[in-house]
Amino acid sequence: MHTTSRIIAAILFITVNSNAQTDSATFRKIADEVLINGKAYDDLHELCKTIGARLSGSPEAEKAVKWGVAALKKAGADTVYLQKCMVPHWVRGKKETAAILLPGSKTETPLSICALGGSVGTPEKGLEAEVVEVKNFEELEKLGKDKIQGKIVFYNYPFDQRFVFTFGGYGDAVRYRGRGPSEAAKYGAIASLCRSVGTLQDDNPHTGATRYKEGIEKIPAGAISNKGAETLSNALKTTPHLKLHIRMNCETLPDVESYNVVAELRGTEHKEEIITVGGHLDSWDLAEGAHDDGTGCAQAIEVIRTLKALHLQTKRTVRAVLFMNEENGLRGGAKYAELAKQNNEKHIAALESDAGGFSPRGFSLDVTPEQKAKIVAYKPLFYRYGVYDFDRNGGGADVDGLKELGAAVMELSPDSQRYFDVHHAATDVFENVNKRELELGASVMTMMIYVLSQYGL
Amino acid sequence: MHTTSRIIAAILFITVNSNAQTDSATFRKIADEVLINGKAYDDLHELCKTIGARLSGSPEAEKAVKWGVAALKKAGADTVYLQKCMVPHWVRGKKETAAILLPGSKTETPLSICALGGSVGTPEKGLEAEVVEVKNFEELEKLGKDKIQGKIVFYNYPFDQRFVFTFGGYGDAVRYRGRGPSEAAKYGAIASLCRSVGTLQDDNPHTGATRYKEGIEKIPAGAISNKGAETLSNALKTTPHLKLHIRMNCETLPDVESYNVVAELRGTEHKEEIITVGGHLDSWDLAEGAHDDGTGCAQAIEVIRTLKALHLQTKRTVRAVLFMNEENGLRGGAKYAELAKQNNEKHIAALESDAGGFSPRGFSLDVTPEQKAKIVAYKPLFYRYGVYDFDRNGGGADVDGLKELGAAVMELSPDSQRYFDVHHAATDVFENVNKRELELGASVMTMMIYVLSQYGL
Repeated sequence: MHTTSRIIAAILFITVNSNAQTDSATFRKIADEVLINGKAYDDLHELCKTIGARLSGSPEAEKAVKWGVAALKKAGADTVYLQKCMVPHWVRGKKETAAILLPGSKTETPLSICALGGSVGTPEKGLEAEVVEVKNFEELEKLGKDKIQGKIVFYNYPFDQRFVFTFGGYGDAVRYRGRGPSEAAKYGAIASLCRSVGTLQDDNPHTGATRYKEGIEKIPAGAISNKGAETLSNALKTTPHLKLHIRMNCETLPDVESYNVVAELRGTEHKEEIITVGGHLDSWDLAEGAHDDGTGCAQAIEVIRTLKALHLQTKRTVRAVLFMNEENGLRGGAKYAELAKQNNEKHIAALESDAGGFSPRGFSLDVTPEQKAKIVAYKPLFYRYGVYDFDRNGGGADVDGLKELGAAVMELSPDSQRYFDVHHAATDVFENVNKRELELGASVMTMMIYVLSQYGL
Repeated sequence: MHTTSRIIAAILFITVNSNAQTDSATFRKIADEVLINGKAYDDLHELCKTIGARLSGSPEAEKAVKWGVAALKKAGADTVYLQKCMVPHWVRGKKETAAILLPGSKTETPLSICALGGSVGTPEKGLEAEVVEVKNFEELEKLGKDKIQGKIVFYNYPFDQRFVFTFGGYGDAVRYRGRGPSEAAKYGAIASLCRSVGTLQDDNPHTGATRYKEGIEKIPAGAISNKGAETLSNALKTTPHLKLHIRMNCETLPDVESYNVVAELRGTEHKEEIITVGGHLDSWDLAEGAHDDGTGCAQAIEVIRTLKALHLQTKRTVRAVLFMNEENGLRGGAKYAELAKQNNEKHIAALESDAGGFSPRGFSLDVTPEQKAKIVAYKPLFYRYGVYDFDRNGGGADVDGLKELGAAVMELSPDSQRYFDVHHAATDVFENVNKRELELGASVMTMMIYVLSQYGL
């Protein structure tokens, strides 16, 4: 190596090293600010307790938009604005019941049921039919039209607890919620039930979107609680020809106008380069949408508040986005990407938090190898905040569309053990969120946004 | 390198490599067994709900000993036996009240208070005095005897939320619980109160042992809830000469005979080498001692059950120990080490779980550099179970005495965010333990005990 090269290398080393030291001190300031003065927990409380469930198209979703604007202004954003998008408007209806009817018996055994999002309703008085229990699609196919026609298909596929990272178990089981109804309808089933995709053996049914396949009859689709699934399965063992009565008054109304809420901190040097941080504002209708995804919204707002509170001027533009309609349409995320493209915006990175407000463990990445190398270089700075895992693949659903614009797409990866206990169920409430866990997540998100905004990608 | 050396190195590499593969498969089997067939959650439920709080010397602690014997036998241990030890017998008494008395006012403002473990009681009708609030020992010393004599000292030192690893914040604040009363008594205080050492701003006081210094008068010592501490501090700002009435009927009775519960799986090849895994059976008296330390007991039992269920013969002897009296005397741990020494036992390692039944993140180690090198070699095998942190120092309190016998002393290091929300408070109940988190902890403990028993140290 030449002397000049050596000097340059030494300077580079010092520069990099000094950055690392400064950044480390900034990271500490960020964590201190969030852990001492953080507002994410209060924001989440307000969203959950004064608005509550906020399914796309509902009056509560509209209130949530107004709340988001106010919260982001209060956090200190330079500008806050709305992005209009049309969203589906599915309503659950008031009656949801399921009951086992044993032949010759007058007593009915009720089961806890909820309609899956997007499901068509049953007739007003419900429907009654025999039940075919299947473990999986293979069993369904083997039974065929003969055995299924005119009956209710019951997918009794339990959440596989062996997945240490529970999103693996979710991905494995959720196909019966998503594809199950149309697969059953192919063989003439008149309704489809799945076992709830959740990790607890409790009596809370878990909702979530189902996806009807084009050209196949839409049949009523519900989820029964894990406890109810056991009850039904046991009853079928002794009485295979029992009947089930189910009633669900859900329906899909015309699309409604709704909004993403966007807030900006303009960059001081490269304001044309945009870094997005966000969560989704809509939630399912059974609970307060605390972990899914009130926490992601509260954290995105906290990123803005913390950068402002600490007077950390960002060189690139930081945008906090509260996306609408992640749960049953992804129209908000699609609109955001569409406008970004249309306006020729330069998106360099986007980070979503939509895996629960639990202790952060890492960031999952959907990035190029070059982007990954740059992001992973910050890993040592995160270690003391419990963040060590940069090996998972995947970005958030709402920011996925930015990938084709060249953005590094990322998602906060919190501890996954408790998420599917409450996910899409009546138990996803504020009380199940821990203040420090939520704040640590907000801290490391702020840190990541900060370094990306300082150094780009 | 000579050819022979190369061959030996190659063989070694293959052997090591093949071990790693076999061990990896065994780890997977262990996790699957615990996550699918685990009994830790049921065991914990039984301990918490049929016995509940079990402070040393109490009838419930006696019941817990019997429960432990039965549970370990059921888990499949080769032998289960008791180790007698005398334990302190402190009882809280029925009346614990505190109230702010404002001069000239008839209304009293009640504060949530609990006596600290080991505290002497107040007179039967309580005591009444002015309050001196101090932030820390330095302030206490500055005020001196003049300002403190005859008064109640109130240490208003809040838990420092900036510690990411909350045990740091605990260690920082707990000195006012431990040393506070004797420090205050030195200056003539007639009682000592500390702000609860807990992370939540709620109304639950947190108890825990206080330690009177020899030769200094023992004064009544309590903790008030964090909410109560704020109330009192605010009242003192406007009315510095307000009085506080406190009443606590606690007392220390003569020592009581109690027991450690010990279960063994005898080693197949080196049965003289002993590996201990344990938790403590006693708990504080305000709640069910779920996280502290029902979870550690349930996990230690699960280690035995899992090794037996999978027919994993251990080359060295594995001992599961449910220690008595960790909370207010550590007599069980001391007895265990004493007997080990007396019987010339060869203890090579000991692992305690006493930091809550949360998602495991690592093992903290109190070991020699040579032991550390051997233990850290297994680190890659643990990564997929969320265990990555082998950098923390420290072993469990109950197994600490085995260190001088040469044992590698270790503690499970779970996520620490929620522990001090409930630690030593009425909220440390079964409902605050998550099944999967508890089981993942039991899984990685079983894995660690397994490799130690196979390969020694």
